[in-house]
Amino acid sequence: MPEAISREAEDTSPLAMIIGGGSVPIAVAEAVERRGRRVVLFPVRGWADPAAVGKFKHYWLPLAQAGLFRHHAHAEGCRDVVFVGTALRPPLRSLRVDWLTLRLLPRVFRAYRGGDDHLISKVADIFEDYGFRIVGPHVVAPEILMPEGPVGSVSPMDRDRIDIARALALLQATGPFDMGQAAVVANNHVLAVEAAEGTDAMLGRISELRARGRIAAPKGTGVLVKAPKPQQDRRFDLPAIGPRTVEEAARAGLAGIAVVAGGTIIAEPAAVAAAADRAKIFVVGIKDERARS
Amino acid sequence: MPEAISREAEDTSPLAMIIGGGSVPIAVAEAVERRGRRVVLFPVRGWADPAAVGKFKHYWLPLAQAGLFRHHAHAEGCRDVVFVGTALRPPLRSLRVDWLTLRLLPRVFRAYRGGDDHLISKVADIFEDYGFRIVGPHVVAPEILMPEGPVGSVSPMDRDRIDIARALALLQATGPFDMGQAAVVANNHVLAVEAAEGTDAMLGRISELRARGRIAAPKGTGVLVKAPKPQQDRRFDLPAIGPRTVEEAARAGLAGIAVVAGGTIIAEPAAVAAAADRAKIFVVGIKDERARS
Repeated sequence: MPEAISREAEDTSPLAMIIGGGSVPIAVAEAVERRGRRVVLFPVRGWADPAAVGKFKHYWLPLAQAGLFRHHAHAEGCRDVVFVGTALRPPLRSLRVDWLTLRLLPRVFRAYRGGDDHLISKVADIFEDYGFRIVGPHVVAPEILMPEGPVGSVSPMDRDRIDIARALALLQATGPFDMGQAAVVANNHVLAVEAAEGTDAMLGRISELRARGRIAAPKGTGVLVKAPKPQQDRRFDLPAIGPRTVEEAARAGLAGIAVVAGGTIIAEPAAVAAAADRAKIFVVGIKDERARS
Repeated sequence: MPEAISREAEDTSPLAMIIGGGSVPIAVAEAVERRGRRVVLFPVRGWADPAAVGKFKHYWLPLAQAGLFRHHAHAEGCRDVVFVGTALRPPLRSLRVDWLTLRLLPRVFRAYRGGDDHLISKVADIFEDYGFRIVGPHVVAPEILMPEGPVGSVSPMDRDRIDIARALALLQATGPFDMGQAAVVANNHVLAVEAAEGTDAMLGRISELRARGRIAAPKGTGVLVKAPKPQQDRRFDLPAIGPRTVEEAARAGLAGIAVVAGGTIIAEPAAVAAAADRAKIFVVGIKDERARS
């Protein structure tokens, strides 16, 4: 088994990607390969979509088999490792844990949202002990980051800007609590804050409340805002949006989506723009005003 | 129609109660009558429970018929008015609005949660123009306020105290955003924050996430914490718990419920204690540590 790969080979060595669910991991893999770097996927069984990984070299990884990862990644000559995609906490009794995982497991994945940034950041240290380097997906493929300005042809109006500012201020206030990265504000009223449930579930709640007449703001008002946590280790779990986020936001009757430019991943930008135009809602990258405070 | 009732009659004049849903309004009415003061209920059609109002003198109030309220309340000699109970926003097209309501409606009820305290507080001013005085339910029946210490036989442990402190700090941070009055924290992780959905729906979410294996904290950990907003006008919409809250918290696998003593209504304390003991969870009134900051 090769030891740590030399620094010079760093940029051309294949990139190991340990991937969870959602469309973001594949968007990242495609972007990295367009840049001429080979990727080796390690889709986590039960999380990643089997249909999507076929076109890349890949090794299925049963959860809790970190030793298996290390074996294949070393054999493939990978030094850099990206963690990307959504993770679900499996029933613990279903896990068969190998010896390396015993050391790593509690710290490797945030098995649920609303976790502990401090622990997550330590994962990098452990991986480095084994000759790996953990990098953020936006480092190997900067084009996956949301740009500033609208994606698609609709732009936010002044009243939407007010909702966006309020949501950003709220996410600033909740930042120290290491919880969600998203909120929905309509007509300056906070309708929902994300914690353990995830963005799609939060948007589904808005749809349901609206259907039951519990939301005063008329259809076509309100903004979903996503922002990285102020103290976030950006190698892990950057907030992400994709076409599905747009569809859920439209179904929830919102005017649009605003995410922090340069601090949020946009999976499949063309599909996001098309979905936004179809639904006549805006998707906009905004400056993080919080950074100024 | 009598004009404003003289100040001297204030304490013995019958109390008008405009009531929404839930068990709190009836608990308040019973407490007031135990104190020897007659109540006249004005249950809002579609919100209040018909089965519960029968033992009191009452006039059903179609939503948006404030003129009708004024007529009956004056005829009954009521000066003091309590607003209590949960409100649901009805489809606007279903409302038939009378002339007085046209002036009052937008400000009378918070038709959805996460509203605007500033507007709510102005309702009192308008009612006073018509010879009424709006009082908080806890003013006419102080015994409905949560006492300090445990209700029932289970007490929080040290680790629960940590979760309680974190939830209180979070509710302190979200206070300026005039949103929910409740959060769930387990093992120091924020699992849910209430905004427009209401406490029961938030607890239902925890149950569902737990069933899907999305919550790391084992069953029997985690606390529901409710606190009034720092800037809250306590005449309106004090947070409340009742037996149903206890049942939902138990179903969500929490260790217990903590609410701010003196700042939260406890409906049917005996039933709450019985439900807590049955579920082996704690229900505790705590000092609002936020007041010190």
